[in-house]
Amino acid sequence: MVVMTRWLDPDEQRTWRAFLSASRGLMETLDRELQRDAGMPHAYYEILVRLSEAPDRRMRMSELATETASSRSRLSHAAARLEAAGWIRREECPTDRRGQLAVLTEQGFATLAAAAPGHVEGVRRHLFDALSPAQVDQLRRISEAVADQLNAS
Amino acid sequence: MVVMTRWLDPDEQRTWRAFLSASRGLMETLDRELQRDAGMPHAYYEILVRLSEAPDRRMRMSELATETASSRSRLSHAAARLEAAGWIRREECPTDRRGQLAVLTEQGFATLAAAAPGHVEGVRRHLFDALSPAQVDQLRRISEAVADQLNAS
Repeated sequence: MVVMTRWLDPDEQRTWRAFLSASRGLMETLDRELQRDAGMPHAYYEILVRLSEAPDRRMRMSELATETASSRSRLSHAAARLEAAGWIRREECPTDRRGQLAVLTEQGFATLAAAAPGHVEGVRRHLFDALSPAQVDQLRRISEAVADQLNAS
Repeated sequence: MVVMTRWLDPDEQRTWRAFLSASRGLMETLDRELQRDAGMPHAYYEILVRLSEAPDRRMRMSELATETASSRSRLSHAAARLEAAGWIRREECPTDRRGQLAVLTEQGFATLAAAAPGHVEGVRRHLFDALSPAQVDQLRRISEAVADQLNAS
């Protein structure tokens, strides 16, 4: 069987490199700022955000993994660190013996509330201030299309 | 001094979450595929690509860090692993005693050549197949604007 590689054309190649540079640079910058100002990387911040918005500030670990687009092993590692910091605790799920819940603690909520203004300002400065309203809309549609494709595969 | 937080409006919030989900999901998927098929994460693949395109297949470490939007510490860690695998070697820079060069080895070039078709197919399947030609152009412009803003700050 001969499989022809569908190589990227020059426009696609340029887009791919620009996307890699922008997305990696953006996440490294936000990580560095959150680490400096709140003592956590962005992935931890996002876990706290998701829990803060959930009913009773608690979610199943499996659902949290899906919501944050994290692998299970990466989420487990993060949850252990967040629990050691006193920001979440893990509980057995009362309705499913195999399930586990992550629960945001009061201390975790307070930490998140203190970190949020500076982080949101960073997201605005490094991302939204560079884009027109039309580009904000385009980026949402592009991102949703890519996420849908990933979920379908 | 009172600093008002410029919170994200609902459209920006939706765009930001979609972008996070898509970019993280995409990079985790490509990482997993490259790890499975070529024994390396995407960041290592990209280092080998950049070296393969440089004159004499060699670059200064500082330039390589800029090109791959990596922090110096992350690049140093990656370079040590790539050197241990026999894919690159590090040399002192002849014109600058403080500089260091990364050089792609023949074995590194062969590894990259073997990994490229499968990886490019993955980039196409998970990203470009989901986008219209207009969206490819939009994503490039958006990414370039974000990268420019990051470099200016």
